[in-house]
Amino acid sequence: MASNISLITLGVADVAKATAFYERLGFVRSKTASEASISFFRAGPLVLALWGREDQRDDALAGTIWTGNGGIVVAQNVASEQDVDAMMARAKTAGAHILKAAAKTFWGGYNGYFADQDGHLWEIAFNPFWKLDDDGRVRLPD
Amino acid sequence: MASNISLITLGVADVAKATAFYERLGFVRSKTASEASISFFRAGPLVLALWGREDQRDDALAGTIWTGNGGIVVAQNVASEQDVDAMMARAKTAGAHILKAAAKTFWGGYNGYFADQDGHLWEIAFNPFWKLDDDGRVRLPD
Repeated sequence: MASNISLITLGVADVAKATAFYERLGFVRSKTASEASISFFRAGPLVLALWGREDQRDDALAGTIWTGNGGIVVAQNVASEQDVDAMMARAKTAGAHILKAAAKTFWGGYNGYFADQDGHLWEIAFNPFWKLDDDGRVRLPD
Repeated sequence: MASNISLITLGVADVAKATAFYERLGFVRSKTASEASISFFRAGPLVLALWGREDQRDDALAGTIWTGNGGIVVAQNVASEQDVDAMMARAKTAGAHILKAAAKTFWGGYNGYFADQDGHLWEIAFNPFWKLDDDGRVRLPD
């Protein structure tokens, strides 16, 4: 449970513009999973998301830690709310800086955010709408 | 070929210290693939790498684009040098900013780097020492 990466989110200035760029690169957008405000692509074994950088910053309560490269969040999807709690507790014990304690999300899931000792942001999430393989791979619909 | 993510590299201040942190989180380091200067972990379906941030910045010729969050590079591993050339050409056509034109690397591979329109860094790499699945997944040894 504790060692997967399922998804990375790139914070972008304009979701439509960034989506067009990644489509030009050959990534195929999931029409079912995506919305105007966020795009999801199958990226080989993981999911690539594009989300407004302010939206992502505010969702992570990242504040001033959110600086260059437009911002990236690495996400670990887990199988239950209890697994989110367990991983967030483990991260705290490991020396992570907890940004957002695990809680229900506006999109119907449950997540928490922490920063590692170099300021890299991680989201630990339970998404009841997404299927998860044993190795943490999200099976994104078309 | 064009739509996978195989590996992400987190730029870190101290590889040993960051490695210890991720081991505390539960990630298992590949002893075979790792060196003192770089750690590789299996992270579910992809590979998580920790590398000195200055080393990574300089390798990518990232210069001033390399700013916050310690720096992250998203990597796509492909099956040949020709595939690296093809993807770099596609990125240029798509509007990417080419940082490092595809060339032989110091570690015996072949790679190029570009930045997307929000400044996110991508590496396109052929690594003759790593096995690659059809979906771009790297099978890291123990």
